Amino acid sequence: MSKPKMFEKPVGLKDYLPAAAKKLRQIERQTLDCMGRWGYEQIVTPSMEYYDTVGVASSTSDQKLFKLLNNRGTTLVLRSDMTSPIARVAASLLRDAPLPLRLSYHANVFRSIEEEAGREAEFFQTGVELIGDASADADAEVVALAIASLKAAGIERFKIAVGHVGFLNGLFEETLQGQAEAQEELKACLLGRDYVGYRERLAALGLSGGVSEELEGILRLRGGQEICDQAMQLSRNETAQASIRHLCEMWDVLKAYGVCDHVLIDLTMIGDFSYYTGMTFEGYAADLGFPVVSGGRYDNLLGQFGRPAPATGFALKTTRLLELVGLEPDGDDSAVLIGYDEAGRREALIEAGRLRDSGNTVVTERIDDGLTHSSLLAAAKPVVYKGKRYAEFLSYTGTLQEHTKGGDAT
Amino acid sequence: MSKPKMFEKPVGLKDYLPAAAKKLRQIERQTLDCMGRWGYEQIVTPSMEYYDTVGVASSTSDQKLFKLLNNRGTTLVLRSDMTSPIARVAASLLRDAPLPLRLSYHANVFRSIEEEAGREAEFFQTGVELIGDASADADAEVVALAIASLKAAGIERFKIAVGHVGFLNGLFEETLQGQAEAQEELKACLLGRDYVGYRERLAALGLSGGVSEELEGILRLRGGQEICDQAMQLSRNETAQASIRHLCEMWDVLKAYGVCDHVLIDLTMIGDFSYYTGMTFEGYAADLGFPVVSGGRYDNLLGQFGRPAPATGFALKTTRLLELVGLEPDGDDSAVLIGYDEAGRREALIEAGRLRDSGNTVVTERIDDGLTHSSLLAAAKPVVYKGKRYAEFLSYTGTLQEHTKGGDAT
Repeated sequence: MSKPKMFEKPVGLKDYLPAAAKKLRQIERQTLDCMGRWGYEQIVTPSMEYYDTVGVASSTSDQKLFKLLNNRGTTLVLRSDMTSPIARVAASLLRDAPLPLRLSYHANVFRSIEEEAGREAEFFQTGVELIGDASADADAEVVALAIASLKAAGIERFKIAVGHVGFLNGLFEETLQGQAEAQEELKACLLGRDYVGYRERLAALGLSGGVSEELEGILRLRGGQEICDQAMQLSRNETAQASIRHLCEMWDVLKAYGVCDHVLIDLTMIGDFSYYTGMTFEGYAADLGFPVVSGGRYDNLLGQFGRPAPATGFALKTTRLLELVGLEPDGDDSAVLIGYDEAGRREALIEAGRLRDSGNTVVTERIDDGLTHSSLLAAAKPVVYKGKRYAEFLSYTGTLQEHTKGGDAT
Repeated sequence: MSKPKMFEKPVGLKDYLPAAAKKLRQIERQTLDCMGRWGYEQIVTPSMEYYDTVGVASSTSDQKLFKLLNNRGTTLVLRSDMTSPIARVAASLLRDAPLPLRLSYHANVFRSIEEEAGREAEFFQTGVELIGDASADADAEVVALAIASLKAAGIERFKIAVGHVGFLNGLFEETLQGQAEAQEELKACLLGRDYVGYRERLAALGLSGGVSEELEGILRLRGGQEICDQAMQLSRNETAQASIRHLCEMWDVLKAYGVCDHVLIDLTMIGDFSYYTGMTFEGYAADLGFPVVSGGRYDNLLGQFGRPAPATGFALKTTRLLELVGLEPDGDDSAVLIGYDEAGRREALIEAGRLRDSGNTVVTERIDDGLTHSSLLAAAKPVVYKGKRYAEFLSYTGTLQEHTKGGDAT
């Protein structure tokens, strides 16, 4: 193991320079403000949790958890999502708060193994949890809020694919009863969106023509409201049918929100978290291969923390949104530069304070050299000083007495 | 070791419920916006760094660092401050950016041992670094910005004590040459503000009358500009005198900023970070025993990362500011509650969207029971529903057709 160089940071971790940090914080603010207008209140939880509690309850596989020991020898984990910590809080500090709870968050989360694949080991998520409401209205609310949040972040072209864990479970129960391994293999293909593999697995199973057709049929179950009717015909299984009825009702609510243009029913969608129990969804932006939001219903998680309650929510992949919206041109062209020498200092700093009080960005620099003052005063706007651009240059020197503006008169 | 209960979080770590989280984020926004108006641009760095680089460069003692291993077996640390990570970035990604750099941050930092003393193992800091300017003007700028930031956070009554590492070093060099142990002991007393202990140590050293008097004299060196003159008399040592001249010039600049009411020269102040090389300062709020801000000059740190440059900065203890300003009353009284049944849903959700678009906070709830609608409509404002208060209740039901406002007409 070679010693890391002084300037290196660990693999899979990222620095955000000013232009990126500004945009990241902007997306954070826009999405949280949007969630606030929907009545979701922010909470903040620690970066570390007990491995035995939140670590185990999270649906992140053990090898992806960053583990560390505290001074007492107890194993802690860096949180891998915010859903489990919020479930812990809802069941402890907020135990007496009446349901429903509408909570939002912005947080960094950690995945240990990701760095191996060149993916990020730490990234930001902004999301909500709606705890204590089992209705299709609640599920539709979080999907509609995910859509509003993406729009608030400046994303316009995206689709939300909505599925239901219960539909596939019911269908498989009906058609592949007792064949747990086959069920898992087929689900793994769907999770990886490997439809070719799914068809191959199906063929290899040597099922009867009707059943095989039924299981292949779900690959075509992607679309609008018409999919609900088709799906009702596909399976007689009660769990599958109840799931479809729930999705159809959600669709009605989403229609009322006026957001169906962004929504697609996709019954092959099963969601990547093991704690999902009902509706799940993922959002894809145009020209981007990975989801920018994922969410779903998890009705059994709160019970693990001692306060059984239905719950639904989502997390925006904030770091990915940053890649989508792109950065604004570097530097802040509206900033004012005030240069001063010792004799002009007092007036310069008072003026800087005045400008800042009225909301301007002002950089002050001690510049003892009169020639520099003159050349900055004569320069065209934007004025460039030490590699940074400024909208204006104000000069305060003892000899000039009066302050003078630099750049072209406009 | 007993297994943690499901609802527990690790010792020394904190949840911020909505009222606290709201205030915390408010302080963060106010202070960062203030720093932005002074031309400081935010950067974001990862929570983890290499132990061998930033871990070692940080002035946090080894036993206070949270350590963990990544998949490659390399030791990482959770960052214990932001000064060293920013020094790493200034020397790597920002290597070609001209100096001075003005950078700001808001970040959680970690201290492993603190939990033992009932202190927090993770807390928030908001701060700035001004890299590439060795002048007294630069040091005064960060002190004046610390004052402006505290005011922006709503803190009015506080004092900033400013000292200089070089003064004590020079004085000790002059009076206790070669007595490294005695120097360290006396410094430890000053760091802990244990003036009784300092006098006892002095007496035990059995120094000559003049030297003993000189070293005791520094305990009285607290006050305004007059302290500079007194200190110049106290020591003939060149390092000590240069330090005092720097502080006096800083005082002139702080006078120009008009902030001297908040500042106190305190030559017993040595700062708690080993990387400080010059001016150091701490801010104390009225009625609070611990500093709410600390900062200083660290001219040797950047060199450790391969880009030698003078630097100065500070960190606000954001979590402590939260304790100072207190929380606002729970709940958001300006929110609107919209209740709807299936027949009223479409209109209800459209109206909710309209109100949110114009900046209102709106919670929607499916309420199928007509009696609840009637009683909420008849209720006095603020309307209470499921434990939450709302400024207004709007009812959308199939039977009522028209929407109706709840609460007293005002």
